[in-house]
Amino acid sequence: MAGKIGLNITQICLPRECTEDEIIEEVLKLNEDPRVHGVYLHLPPASLTSRVLNTLRPEKDVDGTVLVVGGEGPLGVALQCLMQRGGMVVLNSRRSSEGLQKQVCPHRCMRTHTHIHLHKVHLQNVEMSGVGPLTAALRMRNVVQSSSRWAQGQQYRPWTLRSLKLQPLSPVPSDIEISRAQTPKPVDQLAQEIGLLQEETEAYGRTKAKVRLSLLDRLREQPDGKYVLVAGITPTPLGEGKSTVVIGLVQALSAHLKLNSFACLRQPSQGPTFGVKGGAAGGGYAQVIPMEEFNLHLTGDIHAITAANNLVAAAIDARMLHEATQTDKALYSRLVPSVNGVRRFSPIQIARLCRLGISEIDPRALTPQEVSSFVRLDLDPAKVTWQRVVDTNDRFLRKITVGQASTEKGHVRETQFDIAVASEIMAILALADGLGDMKTRLGRMVVGSSRSGQPITAEDLGVSGALAVLMKDAIKPTLMQTLEGSPVFVHAGPFANIAHGNSSVLADKLALKLVGEDGFVVTEAGFGADIGMEKFFNIKCRASGLRPNVVVLVATVRALKMHGGGPNVSAGSPLPREYIDENLSLVTKGCSSNLRKQIQIAHLFGVPVVVALNVFKTDTQAEIDLVCQMAKESGAADAVPCHHWARGGRGSVDLAQAVKQASSQPSHFQFLYSQETPIVEKIRMIAQKVYGADDIELSPEAQAKIDYYNQQGYGKLPICMAKTHLSLSHLPEKKGTPTGFTLPIRDIRASIGAGFIYPLVGTMSTMPGLPTRPCFYDIDLDPVTEEITGLF
Amino acid sequence: MAGKIGLNITQICLPRECTEDEIIEEVLKLNEDPRVHGVYLHLPPASLTSRVLNTLRPEKDVDGTVLVVGGEGPLGVALQCLMQRGGMVVLNSRRSSEGLQKQVCPHRCMRTHTHIHLHKVHLQNVEMSGVGPLTAALRMRNVVQSSSRWAQGQQYRPWTLRSLKLQPLSPVPSDIEISRAQTPKPVDQLAQEIGLLQEETEAYGRTKAKVRLSLLDRLREQPDGKYVLVAGITPTPLGEGKSTVVIGLVQALSAHLKLNSFACLRQPSQGPTFGVKGGAAGGGYAQVIPMEEFNLHLTGDIHAITAANNLVAAAIDARMLHEATQTDKALYSRLVPSVNGVRRFSPIQIARLCRLGISEIDPRALTPQEVSSFVRLDLDPAKVTWQRVVDTNDRFLRKITVGQASTEKGHVRETQFDIAVASEIMAILALADGLGDMKTRLGRMVVGSSRSGQPITAEDLGVSGALAVLMKDAIKPTLMQTLEGSPVFVHAGPFANIAHGNSSVLADKLALKLVGEDGFVVTEAGFGADIGMEKFFNIKCRASGLRPNVVVLVATVRALKMHGGGPNVSAGSPLPREYIDENLSLVTKGCSSNLRKQIQIAHLFGVPVVVALNVFKTDTQAEIDLVCQMAKESGAADAVPCHHWARGGRGSVDLAQAVKQASSQPSHFQFLYSQETPIVEKIRMIAQKVYGADDIELSPEAQAKIDYYNQQGYGKLPICMAKTHLSLSHLPEKKGTPTGFTLPIRDIRASIGAGFIYPLVGTMSTMPGLPTRPCFYDIDLDPVTEEITGLF
Repeated sequence: MAGKIGLNITQICLPRECTEDEIIEEVLKLNEDPRVHGVYLHLPPASLTSRVLNTLRPEKDVDGTVLVVGGEGPLGVALQCLMQRGGMVVLNSRRSSEGLQKQVCPHRCMRTHTHIHLHKVHLQNVEMSGVGPLTAALRMRNVVQSSSRWAQGQQYRPWTLRSLKLQPLSPVPSDIEISRAQTPKPVDQLAQEIGLLQEETEAYGRTKAKVRLSLLDRLREQPDGKYVLVAGITPTPLGEGKSTVVIGLVQALSAHLKLNSFACLRQPSQGPTFGVKGGAAGGGYAQVIPMEEFNLHLTGDIHAITAANNLVAAAIDARMLHEATQTDKALYSRLVPSVNGVRRFSPIQIARLCRLGISEIDPRALTPQEVSSFVRLDLDPAKVTWQRVVDTNDRFLRKITVGQASTEKGHVRETQFDIAVASEIMAILALADGLGDMKTRLGRMVVGSSRSGQPITAEDLGVSGALAVLMKDAIKPTLMQTLEGSPVFVHAGPFANIAHGNSSVLADKLALKLVGEDGFVVTEAGFGADIGMEKFFNIKCRASGLRPNVVVLVATVRALKMHGGGPNVSAGSPLPREYIDENLSLVTKGCSSNLRKQIQIAHLFGVPVVVALNVFKTDTQAEIDLVCQMAKESGAADAVPCHHWARGGRGSVDLAQAVKQASSQPSHFQFLYSQETPIVEKIRMIAQKVYGADDIELSPEAQAKIDYYNQQGYGKLPICMAKTHLSLSHLPEKKGTPTGFTLPIRDIRASIGAGFIYPLVGTMSTMPGLPTRPCFYDIDLDPVTEEITGLF
Repeated sequence: MAGKIGLNITQICLPRECTEDEIIEEVLKLNEDPRVHGVYLHLPPASLTSRVLNTLRPEKDVDGTVLVVGGEGPLGVALQCLMQRGGMVVLNSRRSSEGLQKQVCPHRCMRTHTHIHLHKVHLQNVEMSGVGPLTAALRMRNVVQSSSRWAQGQQYRPWTLRSLKLQPLSPVPSDIEISRAQTPKPVDQLAQEIGLLQEETEAYGRTKAKVRLSLLDRLREQPDGKYVLVAGITPTPLGEGKSTVVIGLVQALSAHLKLNSFACLRQPSQGPTFGVKGGAAGGGYAQVIPMEEFNLHLTGDIHAITAANNLVAAAIDARMLHEATQTDKALYSRLVPSVNGVRRFSPIQIARLCRLGISEIDPRALTPQEVSSFVRLDLDPAKVTWQRVVDTNDRFLRKITVGQASTEKGHVRETQFDIAVASEIMAILALADGLGDMKTRLGRMVVGSSRSGQPITAEDLGVSGALAVLMKDAIKPTLMQTLEGSPVFVHAGPFANIAHGNSSVLADKLALKLVGEDGFVVTEAGFGADIGMEKFFNIKCRASGLRPNVVVLVATVRALKMHGGGPNVSAGSPLPREYIDENLSLVTKGCSSNLRKQIQIAHLFGVPVVVALNVFKTDTQAEIDLVCQMAKESGAADAVPCHHWARGGRGSVDLAQAVKQASSQPSHFQFLYSQETPIVEKIRMIAQKVYGADDIELSPEAQAKIDYYNQQGYGKLPICMAKTHLSLSHLPEKKGTPTGFTLPIRDIRASIGAGFIYPLVGTMSTMPGLPTRPCFYDIDLDPVTEEITGLF
């Protein structure tokens, strides 16, 4: 049988003063618990009464039948201990030591419960001794039967997805009207349909649930599904509908082709929801519902990031003040206080001692020099790079002075707030592959440097454990659904301006296991393919180890006309006539410039491309045909028009067929550069091969930073370019395929926790503002029906 | 039969192009839906096929049997319409028109589904016509049977609370160890045990659920339980354990006396969790579990407040910038833009026109003067009172300068951040009695004044609808449980320094309905009784209309010794000997001063007092006996020692008995002052009668504010004193019962949305700081077990 087989053997550990009734109550619980396959009664002899022994169901009784597993490590030690108390059964197991989980006894008996998970138990190797052969055989059979049932429960479960019917209206109503007209399935029903176990989900209301990462462990042996990236050509400032393509494609794959499929989307920043931006839940008949939940607090992940980010900021300023106003001795006696006469370093302080090369862990034994280097981070206020964040479009926080109250004794400092999604913690959330990895990355974040030029980390501040605690729920992706009832993960949304602009590694990984070998996971990269897709490949796929099968490249006739030389397109102004009337000449020029180049960029990475033409009602059939023909001539595996916005999944069935077809082609994925390549060369390769630049030009600041990063050992990090998305070049007004330019690198920064270096090409805004008439003028809530109006 | 009886009659409305299969699918759903008692097939004749008709279960078929209800209003109109299509049954109903609920058809047929809820149907008045009498009788019986089943489901449900067993250890382990050692009941099980319907809860993970306010409507006829307030004597800076008393009392009432009971607690600010403060989930064996969920994000309410508060702040600064840099005409064309050639005011703008006395609602018809007064709030930057908030202890934000980036064109301004719980929106959340009331209060918030001295509100900024949208989930209280499995509501936590420091009106109201007539709701007031209890009575009870039955006054031997003249007590320093050794003389003096005075304050409001002595292990029996004796001599209905911290509910059984006894005494509740009393007199009454001051002294600023508030019509608002909690007077060092002092009123502010005026007695900090060694040094997360350590 494929998959893994597991046993869960539990010892009962109760305090000595337990009554017989209390023991029996515990045994009854274990009898009923389907996750427990065997119970070993480890009790004082006086408590092992016949009433207790008779309460335990025979099929769970493994008393005297102790399991010993081949293999090394902590499991062996634990079982040695058990061996001394009874007979033994030897099971031969592959990867057995990975299966051991320890758990502190909930009854505080100070013993450790041992839950033993065995993988691929080979029954032919069973040996027994120490109990009568019949008893042993019976007990073994019981254990094996129980564990098989459990193991079946643990295996991959085929989907039983029930689609929601769509009856698209014409003209297409507003997004919120469409969203509200559809009743989503209860999220626990959706979770069950896609094979999640009950204990793997945590509902947040009726339409959202967090999914636990333990799923990855359960489905470890399950092959991944096909991995599809949706990217776009260089967009107009109005956006070309990548999110709707993702959602429409998944609606088509699941509701119409009946293939398992999952959309993985970024969580949008809440700030712009009340400013100028439209929703990020898709649009028209390709949406995630309920769209207001998607666009508002969701399950609080961005709020958690804000809290964690600002705790670091508060710790930085408070620490600088305390160091500036206290002697080494005073600092030391506060940082390592005497508690009941004993002074001890906390684990996080020992980690800092370790980095300082101090091996002494007795606080009394440090030399004055060691005390000084321990207590003084000596942060240079001018070199603090950490900024506060807020999930509001608050332009007045772009540059501020803090510390002006008299209590801060004149320690004023200029700093700024960014929008919350620009926090490095968001980039970490998107790249982490588990709780341990996230915690390590959080501790590694560099917040500034000392006066002697040493990088100072979140762990130096002592705050990394608290950050992990604040982020412990945010790491679980949120499950929602499309208008047609297909599953969607919403997780992380790093700012595409200064970070990598892709949804989370963990959501993609969970989804790839859930859809199964023949299923599809469709994920989205922010901005145009030159930025979002390049970062998806070089940063996200490098971090995750996942390999994409197909790239879907989204184009619109509007954007192609712009690249073909059409007039300026800007938000708030009416579209010029060229964009409304048929114009095959502009379309041709757009296809042969930007579209062709973006297809070539995807081919640099060895991945087949399907062009998805997001059709607007002003597009003519001749224009549509022309784009599809030219895309194929430029090397696309296929090119199809999509009508998801007006028709839902039914409008994207052709795209779904094309993606399915392309995914069966071989993909020869390769990175653009090796991590070992020097920083300057990595930047040059991206500029030349992806953007089409002649060369790069480093400012003196940028060169100095590169030298500093090399010296600090950051040279092997991948590159995350901070460049405009409105052109392949650094000049937003250069449309099509600009050539003959040199890419200027103004400055370079680093997100050491997230694990990338980001060169700044031009000035990137990290705090949007509110317009004169923000969206909030139209947003309202009916207090009786609780319905929201005016949200897009 | 008492209670209400309801019918839910549904029409099926489907688009004309529906297939027969689709209609049948809808009918099958209604067949299975227990909330639907009757179905009226309102379909085009061609669709009324025999297959469709036969699908509808006979007991749900009310076709041709139309209900008409006595009474006026929209219900009558709806039923007139139905009457034209068949026979009729006349049911006589009390309050029938209240029962009508309209719902937009989910299939967008543009018709309105009518759900008819009837109250107290009198069957003797049934008349029938238009169908054969047997059919009619049968159908009527079906409807009545179905509706009776439904009505029973709607009524009050007796509790079936399962208590969790506690086995207290000695010495008492850390709070988090105790919390973790207990496995909470799944929150949906708890919800069911206390009579909540499934549709009334929204789970947030496995241990927290939001409870919908529709409960108040369902249990409208249900009498309230007993209402118990826990307040305290003037505390030491270490706190005297009010929260643990609340939780211990509820554990005793429910798990030991088997009486329905509910604790209502404030949600703590997350900032101090990482600074110096202990947890707020109780402590020892009287805790809310899981305590880390309680102390961290909970269900995101404070995050929602932060988002709403800061949206107002961003709107203020952006508006001032836009007004300063644009002409009237430019502002007007942006604020009232032409959309497809039409200019329209949004409803929120019409509300502003109304306040300006402009009745014209055609944007083209306003005079230039009217345009100018409409587009210019003309906020005076020096008179903006609204501040940004963050839920982090960030002392460097106490005074800041914003707007220093070049994009803000020199419009710099000094301002500050407060801790999030100090936001007026938190005070509103705590006082609102429903979604509509909250929305009104949010719109009414005054954010500053114009250069001509007019108050400017959130509604003037156009942001009030968006605020209600951001707060739509925060208004639902969060259900959790104690260590012994009794229910707890956690909801709102307004800063006791500048607001009223009490948990929410809504949580108390929901809990009072749920516990039933013989049950108990125990709620807590922040700080000492002179502040928290006074505000509970004069502000919270005034807003809610609820009347308390008993006050529990928490005292400790430690605080009584301090009031009796013991040495200074401060956090971080070891306790002087007087507090560790027996000292009956100090105890005597403490009882006859502060304890006696606080009992008298409660009696001012006509409510009986039970003194709860929170026993520490250093307290001697003689000291305990002395406190109880003197408390009774001072007028307490009873006084009992409590041992909940070390023993859980079992340690508070005596208190529970005493509270039960006192609650059967008559309570003669009265407010201290009438709303009509002038502001100065209200302040004087509190100062003299509650604090024991000789008189008050108003600064010129305070007097000017009072004049301004009177002029603006705010004179009838209740008073929310911002005074130190460490003394009955304004001087923290004056312990016991200070006399002979004049209370200085430094300044006066107003929270118009929350609905109170707050005089400042001294300087109130609204932003805590981090100490040199914050708690976060000890907080950590094990990435494998996901266990948190070091959190208290």
